[in-house]
Amino acid sequence: MGMINVAKEGPTPGSLRLKELTIEWLERRGVTLEDMASLVYSIQKKYLPALTLKECLESVERVLEKREVQNAVFTGLSLDEMAEKGLFAEPLSSMLRGDDSLYGIDEVLALSIVNIYGSIGLTNFGYLDKIKPGVIGKINEKKGQQVNTFLDDLVAAIVAAAAARLAHRERDKE
Amino acid sequence: MGMINVAKEGPTPGSLRLKELTIEWLERRGVTLEDMASLVYSIQKKYLPALTLKECLESVERVLEKREVQNAVFTGLSLDEMAEKGLFAEPLSSMLRGDDSLYGIDEVLALSIVNIYGSIGLTNFGYLDKIKPGVIGKINEKKGQQVNTFLDDLVAAIVAAAAARLAHRERDKE
Amino acid sequence: MGMINVAKEGPTPGSLRLKELTIEWLERRGVTLEDMASLVYSIQKKYLPALTLKECLESVERVLEKREVQNAVFTGLSLDEMAEKGLFAEPLSSMLRGDDSLYGIDEVLALSIVNIYGSIGLTNFGYLDKIKPGVIGKINEKKGQQVNTFLDDLVAAIVAAAAARLAHRERDKE
Amino acid sequence: MGMINVAKEGPTPGSLRLKELTIEWLERRGVTLEDMASLVYSIQKKYLPALTLKECLESVERVLEKREVQNAVFTGLSLDEMAEKGLFAEPLSSMLRGDDSLYGIDEVLALSIVNIYGSIGLTNFGYLDKIKPGVIGKINEKKGQQVNTFLDDLVAAIVAAAAARLAHRERDKE
Repeated sequence: MGMINVAKEGPTPGSLRLKELTIEWLERRGVTLEDMASLVYSIQKKYLPALTLKECLESVERVLEKREVQNAVFTGLSLDEMAEKGLFAEPLSSMLRGDDSLYGIDEVLALSIVNIYGSIGLTNFGYLDKIKPGVIGKINEKKGQQVNTFLDDLVAAIVAAAAARLAHRERDKE
Repeated sequence: MGMINVAKEGPTPGSLRLKELTIEWLERRGVTLEDMASLVYSIQKKYLPALTLKECLESVERVLEKREVQNAVFTGLSLDEMAEKGLFAEPLSSMLRGDDSLYGIDEVLALSIVNIYGSIGLTNFGYLDKIKPGVIGKINEKKGQQVNTFLDDLVAAIVAAAAARLAHRERDKE
Repeated sequence: MGMINVAKEGPTPGSLRLKELTIEWLERRGVTLEDMASLVYSIQKKYLPALTLKECLESVERVLEKREVQNAVFTGLSLDEMAEKGLFAEPLSSMLRGDDSLYGIDEVLALSIVNIYGSIGLTNFGYLDKIKPGVIGKINEKKGQQVNTFLDDLVAAIVAAAAARLAHRERDKE
Repeated sequence: MGMINVAKEGPTPGSLRLKELTIEWLERRGVTLEDMASLVYSIQKKYLPALTLKECLESVERVLEKREVQNAVFTGLSLDEMAEKGLFAEPLSSMLRGDDSLYGIDEVLALSIVNIYGSIGLTNFGYLDKIKPGVIGKINEKKGQQVNTFLDDLVAAIVAAAAARLAHRERDKE
């Protein structure tokens, strides 16, 4: 293990390959990087007036380089897809297909994403999950046709994390 | 240790005494049981049409019997009061007095309350913390005169937990 | 909604039916209530000298009445079983089948169980997960034949939660 | 806001200044970077045979550049010091001075540190907190003379986070 590799925090070949897969999985379920970047922009613009959409896009990409985020996406979207195909036994099948309000494992996975940038993302996550703006609302409306129990929470969490990351970086520069 | 005491989940003399203290601390900082119960009612009424204010009040009281909740309240409100008196060194003093947006320990304590009723309270917590309805808004407006860095998050968390508790109980009866 | 139902904390018909299912799922994967109760006894006996195995068994049962615990068990054990059958796509399939040390979603689900009795269960969870005593060790040894990526963490979490619950109740009586 | 600053993940002047303060606070309470690095080495060496102490030291330093970690340290150590001076009212004063086993806010703060590198640090945190090796044991023995209720959990969390960070980076290079 070389010192230089250990010291820098940037992406490595392994995490970049998994990042591409993560983006593919999200797109297959109907969510693009641009969808998420525009939500980051809409919630963070009032706090960071000089913010650009390009910076929001980069922030979403940095979040998707984190292994914990990738694992949450792979696991949650697999659960959505397998529930859609009717592969689960009861009572789990009905809970996932109906997005049961007492089934909180989707929020549990989302929280593991939000926590990576500290607790300041928590408020934005809850707000996005309740108000369902932009692509989160579109995902939610599709719930009759496809199972999106995990997808909407994962997207809200990625957006909240990317916004928290921008808030941290802006302050640290001051 | 008697079997009966271990089996039942209700309050014990120790937790009831601490509950009274918790209520006193919250009132001293400007928040009553009724303030919190009315917020529970306003966010939960649409899901539970037969809900009464009295049930909301009881749910808030049950939440305040939990030791983890009591400890979070004692710790957070002590931090608010001591910051108000200028007892902390820098950089903590400025962070607490200015409710620094990158200081997330208030959300961390709040999360420990929300988690007791499972992750379904997370969305309501984030929403309350962002929208600041009722007493949460009033607390926030007082931030010039008194330090309420922890108080607003603790109140949002207690309300979200009491609402989650009602949702769990309603479903379990069906 | 009747006041009496709202006020008491005990189990309801819905949660009892799901509890029986939870116990069946755990047994199908090789873990009995007695296995878990004996681990609770072994870690809590030194702090509570009058503790009996029967009390430990009851504490495990109370934990399994919580909806959040039931949902974590249904979800985690489904993931284990479906990974065993090779139903997941890569890269998730290899991560689950090999219990990849960077795959942390099993710990994320376990944490949602531990948190229900507050953070005091965290230390016991980590210790059990590292030392792997009793049935947790047996589960771990079977990892060649069956996929137990979630099972061992779920069992450690249920045991840690049942121990934390006993610690809370003992203190509250004093 | 420049693109370059937003894109890179490294430390900024603001976080570096706070990092120095964080190290000073830990040293004032009796814990050095070297103490923590040697614990990282002892728990991670068997998984990473080429690991050096210098890499462990760098990993601890990276962890201490995170704002969430700095805030947890400032808050927890202030609580320890003020409890030592008898500044808190009851019941909080006795809980902090006696490191009450039902007071879990120290674990709550520690968890906010561990979570930054994902849930894989959870097991190491619990293990360190239970076994109390190296400097954690020394802190614990001093509990008669000074209040270290938060210090031992914070140190265990920083060590667990630094070990998780090394595990993530090693895998990503493969």
